[in-house]
Amino acid sequence: MPEFRQNMATREWVIIATERSGRPDQFVRRRAERRILPQLSEGCPFCPGNEDRTPPPSLVLGDGPDWNVRVVPNKYAALRSDNSNDREKVGRFLKAGGYGIAEVIVETPRHDLSIATMPHSQVRLVLEAYRHRITEVAQMPDINFVTLFRNHGERAGTSLEHPHSQLIATPIIPPNLRDQIHQSMMSYDSYGKCVYCEMINEEIRQKERLISDSPQFVAFVPFASRSPFEMRILPKEHRAFFGDVSDQELDDLSRVLQTVLFKIYKGLDDPDYNYIVHSAPVGDDDVKYFHWYLSILPRLTTPAGFEMGSGIYINVMAPEQCAQMLRMVEVGTED
Amino acid sequence: MPEFRQNMATREWVIIATERSGRPDQFVRRRAERRILPQLSEGCPFCPGNEDRTPPPSLVLGDGPDWNVRVVPNKYAALRSDNSNDREKVGRFLKAGGYGIAEVIVETPRHDLSIATMPHSQVRLVLEAYRHRITEVAQMPDINFVTLFRNHGERAGTSLEHPHSQLIATPIIPPNLRDQIHQSMMSYDSYGKCVYCEMINEEIRQKERLISDSPQFVAFVPFASRSPFEMRILPKEHRAFFGDVSDQELDDLSRVLQTVLFKIYKGLDDPDYNYIVHSAPVGDDDVKYFHWYLSILPRLTTPAGFEMGSGIYINVMAPEQCAQMLRMVEVGTED
Repeated sequence: MPEFRQNMATREWVIIATERSGRPDQFVRRRAERRILPQLSEGCPFCPGNEDRTPPPSLVLGDGPDWNVRVVPNKYAALRSDNSNDREKVGRFLKAGGYGIAEVIVETPRHDLSIATMPHSQVRLVLEAYRHRITEVAQMPDINFVTLFRNHGERAGTSLEHPHSQLIATPIIPPNLRDQIHQSMMSYDSYGKCVYCEMINEEIRQKERLISDSPQFVAFVPFASRSPFEMRILPKEHRAFFGDVSDQELDDLSRVLQTVLFKIYKGLDDPDYNYIVHSAPVGDDDVKYFHWYLSILPRLTTPAGFEMGSGIYINVMAPEQCAQMLRMVEVGTED
Repeated sequence: MPEFRQNMATREWVIIATERSGRPDQFVRRRAERRILPQLSEGCPFCPGNEDRTPPPSLVLGDGPDWNVRVVPNKYAALRSDNSNDREKVGRFLKAGGYGIAEVIVETPRHDLSIATMPHSQVRLVLEAYRHRITEVAQMPDINFVTLFRNHGERAGTSLEHPHSQLIATPIIPPNLRDQIHQSMMSYDSYGKCVYCEMINEEIRQKERLISDSPQFVAFVPFASRSPFEMRILPKEHRAFFGDVSDQELDDLSRVLQTVLFKIYKGLDDPDYNYIVHSAPVGDDDVKYFHWYLSILPRLTTPAGFEMGSGIYINVMAPEQCAQMLRMVEVGTED
């Protein structure tokens, strides 16, 4: 029977309607569509030897030319640090200059790897680069919000094959983030607890949507998932700002992140996906009501008019069924 | 130079960044991808002769077997009127039964036409069916929100070729609609005017994004468009509920809707798109601060991690450039 479910943190509703769908294996990528990439691609701006095709890096991890992770300004950025940050009225409309920071985190010199398949030590370095950059960028003038994200594959909005993540920082705080924070604040005021801490406890208690429960992180398919195989990773220790993650947490997170991405890599045969680090606005680092988290969104279905008009997503796969399938995928680390 | 722009009604921001993109004709569908459909398709459940493959209609316009528009319950609906409407706690999580109404509006007996290419009189009938159904469904028990929408093409989330629209009605009012209404309410309280009425006046005054300015409706590419060739149609007379549209307005709307859809059909060579009728929640029919509108969203680009994480859309085509191109497309009505 179809049902509505509410995301307890944002109060957004989804519809879980599994009758229309077939078995989970409908979402496994067809063999013919498989990505087969070379270790090194001559024309790739992110491959070793082509370092002069990107602007000077803001961070390099590794020794000299033998870098491991390289962070560079995005050459084709929508926002730039030398743009104006002035707000201006155009009649009744409001606009602002395109000031912002856009960086690319090149995750490895290897053209053919991804977070799921690279050595574990490399994933740890990628996350270290995230922490370094979000912390530094958050201190830049007038930056109020930093998004870290990864687009994997064409359906996820990228055509650039070389494994990379991105950071975009803006002076703008979007209203949907403010709304989400407002909801979490109201929940804190009612229950005296962070709603994300409560969500973690409830998912651990109910068990059936858990994928990984490690000392410091929990990964699950959320109760109110918008789409099949959506996953979420949260730190058990309450923290609003991703930049405050500890060394020990980074160790654990790098294992959990690689595990869940390997599970969809193997279980769904390398699906296109986005992942996003949701962190508090700059200056809200220590608030008790917001909690950073990482969401992973495989791009397996297409939102249509109803989703776009109502914001209510119809999910054709039960989160419990997705979690069960993912738990069964054996992880063979390549480290 | 890239810039941020704010939607004055919802306060959502977009980034207009045209430097990354090429010319508008990059969005024109390739000839090889063109849809060529038969007038009648034997296996199609919505074609004449196959009426027994759908549940009994809730509305038929036309005479007996020679129907013009046919509205039927959605056989594969995510929501059903015989489901429970109870809300229930699952631990700390909230769920509700899958109660709701889902209908399909079969727009014409012809398999190969669309709103852009059917006779104008037929478009008028489709809109009449919308008005009839939204009004009737809004009176059904516990229905609080009705979405009317159209998915055109695979990228817009449909694989069913026969021209059809859909209606989905829920007891649930999604929080993003409440947030939007709250913003429009605050704007009303500040300025003493409906923010959508103000938006109409401002777009007419600024002219450069207008596509059509008829006696009763205005169509434009919004100042803060999320994506290339987004369009919006609004009634000049303030009305919150679509069901209250007058006969005379329906005449005008059917011409404006067909005109703008013909312009993208011809100008972009039949792109995939969604359109959505945004109407007030049930019971808010007469509120002064909300205004119904129709938004048209061609599916030409792919939202990626940044859009999904921040809600800030990066639009690679200036709305002014899109409007200029669409104004130049000559409309040859087929009536």
